Amino acid sequence: MEEKYVSEAVIRRLPRYYRYLGELIDEGVDHISSQELSERMSVTASQIRQDLNNFGGFGQQGYGYNVINLRDSIGKILGLDKQYNIIMIGGGNLGRAIANYGNFRKKGFNFIAIFDRNKDIVGTRINDIDVYSLDDLESFVLKNKVDIAALAIPKNVSKEIASKLVNLGVKAFWNFSHTELSLGDDVLVENVHLSESLMSLSYRISHK
Amino acid sequence: MEEKYVSEAVIRRLPRYYRYLGELIDEGVDHISSQELSERMSVTASQIRQDLNNFGGFGQQGYGYNVINLRDSIGKILGLDKQYNIIMIGGGNLGRAIANYGNFRKKGFNFIAIFDRNKDIVGTRINDIDVYSLDDLESFVLKNKVDIAALAIPKNVSKEIASKLVNLGVKAFWNFSHTELSLGDDVLVENVHLSESLMSLSYRISHK
Repeated sequence: MEEKYVSEAVIRRLPRYYRYLGELIDEGVDHISSQELSERMSVTASQIRQDLNNFGGFGQQGYGYNVINLRDSIGKILGLDKQYNIIMIGGGNLGRAIANYGNFRKKGFNFIAIFDRNKDIVGTRINDIDVYSLDDLESFVLKNKVDIAALAIPKNVSKEIASKLVNLGVKAFWNFSHTELSLGDDVLVENVHLSESLMSLSYRISHK
Repeated sequence: MEEKYVSEAVIRRLPRYYRYLGELIDEGVDHISSQELSERMSVTASQIRQDLNNFGGFGQQGYGYNVINLRDSIGKILGLDKQYNIIMIGGGNLGRAIANYGNFRKKGFNFIAIFDRNKDIVGTRINDIDVYSLDDLESFVLKNKVDIAALAIPKNVSKEIASKLVNLGVKAFWNFSHTELSLGDDVLVENVHLSESLMSLSYRISHK
């Protein structure tokens, strides 16, 4: 499939299409017009057609989209046909919560290890995932394929640990710590700033 | 302060400014030019000036921004000078993780109760927050001021519980369940879809 340059906004919408199409499949819907899909998703039908045209388009005029095919195609575009090994840095509440999200494994995201400083949990397993000491991080990363490092640790340590991981060859980070990471142009960082999302909500509450 | 229409993108950037300015304060920085701030944040200086001009602008030509004043002003714009009562629906890993985020309280977000179905945790306290049975949700909301309901529950129950809460007068939701909520025009919903963020990352890994 030939791909054009795809904007950040489109990349943000694709997972949403993927989720909606999954809901349609659960409901037993086989086909959907871009009009119906747009009503469900509160996006214009032309936006949907434009977004999908970035990847060659999938609809047939007058027929709409085959829901399963479209979801599978979007899944492939999103790279969900591949398997990713993820390590979680931080075995606190948030790290556990994320590593235990059952659905990630089904989508090919495998948490293969949790690292923490806390001696009380090192050596235990959290939902089938071994918890290692942070002291063993380097040797683990050298011995195992690590595609993504998730960071659920305080900001004062996340920069240092992330730099260390970059030096060990880790190229993608899923960052939950309260800081931005500048790790170089060839390193991908996806930030989830929970407090910023709550602040956006408080903005909207105050300005209603 | 007179305010113009403010776009969603600006509202998304304000919390980021707030966080950066907080980091500068921690480092003891008093003043900063829009140029320096832009380099740190990887946003153009003109973008920063434009964004702040939505709220009247805060800089002085040739002098830059007073960091503390600017952060306080942005905090007020974000509504962080107010107090919000939040209830957490769902006392599982994710619900606990979010309710325990220490910094929220400092910003005026007070988790006043956690609700769960699990009898093993009902009646306990999680980090000073009482855990109630979901059966007591209605009476609790009628007796207490609830500004925001956070939903860390499976999607098959979140719609029903959210509708119930809307009927009880709750006007703002922080939604971590894997579904979108259509709760009417006067109800605010802030979605955090963790799996979508991971899919965006996998897209970027696959298309590197």
